[in-house]
Amino acid sequence: MWLKCEHLQPVGAFKMRGAYTAISRLSDAERARGVVTHSSGNHGHAVAYAAKLLGTHAVIVMPTNAPQVKIEGIKRHGGEIVQVPREDRESTALRLERERNLVPVPPYDHADVILGQSTCALEILDDLPQVTTIMTPIGGGGLLAGTSATVAALKPSVQVYGVEPAASAKLTAALAEGHPVHFAFADTIADGLIPPSIGSLTFEYIRRVVKEAIRVTDEEIAVAVKFLFQKMGLRVEPSGAVTVAALLHGHLKPTGTTVGVLSGGNVDPELFARLTA
Amino acid sequence: MWLKCEHLQPVGAFKMRGAYTAISRLSDAERARGVVTHSSGNHGHAVAYAAKLLGTHAVIVMPTNAPQVKIEGIKRHGGEIVQVPREDRESTALRLERERNLVPVPPYDHADVILGQSTCALEILDDLPQVTTIMTPIGGGGLLAGTSATVAALKPSVQVYGVEPAASAKLTAALAEGHPVHFAFADTIADGLIPPSIGSLTFEYIRRVVKEAIRVTDEEIAVAVKFLFQKMGLRVEPSGAVTVAALLHGHLKPTGTTVGVLSGGNVDPELFARLTA
Repeated sequence: MWLKCEHLQPVGAFKMRGAYTAISRLSDAERARGVVTHSSGNHGHAVAYAAKLLGTHAVIVMPTNAPQVKIEGIKRHGGEIVQVPREDRESTALRLERERNLVPVPPYDHADVILGQSTCALEILDDLPQVTTIMTPIGGGGLLAGTSATVAALKPSVQVYGVEPAASAKLTAALAEGHPVHFAFADTIADGLIPPSIGSLTFEYIRRVVKEAIRVTDEEIAVAVKFLFQKMGLRVEPSGAVTVAALLHGHLKPTGTTVGVLSGGNVDPELFARLTA
Repeated sequence: MWLKCEHLQPVGAFKMRGAYTAISRLSDAERARGVVTHSSGNHGHAVAYAAKLLGTHAVIVMPTNAPQVKIEGIKRHGGEIVQVPREDRESTALRLERERNLVPVPPYDHADVILGQSTCALEILDDLPQVTTIMTPIGGGGLLAGTSATVAALKPSVQVYGVEPAASAKLTAALAEGHPVHFAFADTIADGLIPPSIGSLTFEYIRRVVKEAIRVTDEEIAVAVKFLFQKMGLRVEPSGAVTVAALLHGHLKPTGTTVGVLSGGNVDPELFARLTA
């Protein structure tokens, strides 16, 4: 199995691809207005950093209980933080968008964000033309949609799988129902993979290419995080390690040349120490 | 500063380059005899793995107090372990070489080992043709000698620096004296950089290219290990982090395009947890 090390990207996650692409494709007039997002995780961090690089102002709406390390990361890039109760994040971002005339940069359900995430699979096809299988984590579906778009355009024979936490099997449900299904908040260590639903736009890309969802438990994810650190020296966050969890536990029998995307590496130090002890 | 991530190599260190190259250049008759080395660290692990890949038998002489994790790593690759008191390692390897007609694969002072280590700088020049400065850790000098050979042959304008623990400043002494100087055992967390001396062969390559040694303290190395893990998610062993320690503490003012080699990532879990807490 080959590993695509997106946890080594700037901001420690593939999210930089989509955030940078989306903001870089804004007009000068739009960039002068500033951008807003309500992701408290890697996407929020990526929007703050991309905004700095591209000379615009970013407002990141975060829950009041956001970890200090994430707040500091965003502040270091000059991002403006607005903290509200978790359930008010989306409505607050929408209000700020209107009141302050900001441009929204959503975490996944947006064509330019998906375009950015599609470059990950582009690099995989460049680096490893013989690839036959690509597995990515799936939460809202930005990475899997971008991967699907690239594979459909350039090498449709590649099998693409999305791996999700069993506690929040949104892709499984969407593939069964034929449309995204809304899920209640789920408790899982894969905290980057639990938006309430797959995006309706991302699902349009995904459904054309992805035949199967793979589900992994928190116990399996924990084993993968520990394996990646102890055996390979890689610090990968639980959400980023689900592809390796799937393979380690036999949920997919690799045939040919299989690539698993490690999507991010930002993990609370105490949780990481506990998982890898 | 760019980082050359040798800690992500097989066996977690650049040592695989030299061990594999040296064993691959043996004749069939030599490979049929088997190889021996007395390094208990990354070189021993690399020799065991390269021997397995190239179909020969490896005997690794290790001190009786070698960490269990290193013993297991070597055993996993089918290496034969002979444990003796630390001070008897070299003489035991020499005795085994004679008694069992084994071929020695020394850790650094050997032309084919240096040839293998030279491929690290070759990749740097390929990946980053605009490089102006390369820093590598130095212990016995294999990596720095290989780097010097590559730079002398392909881009002599590159400034090459060796970084060593202040407690065992063998390159500083050798450059001052004009020849390798023997050092007593030094106590430093950079436990991969304390052979008794720079090699006489490695120094011949180094002296032609390297103008300056940089010394870093254990405190500076500890800061670098913590920085690399917390900010970049990289697990690097203390010996492998000395280049970043030198830059973080202003021992070298980078001009142009500077590359620091992270030479290895194998570190005792308890020490690592303590350094990164």
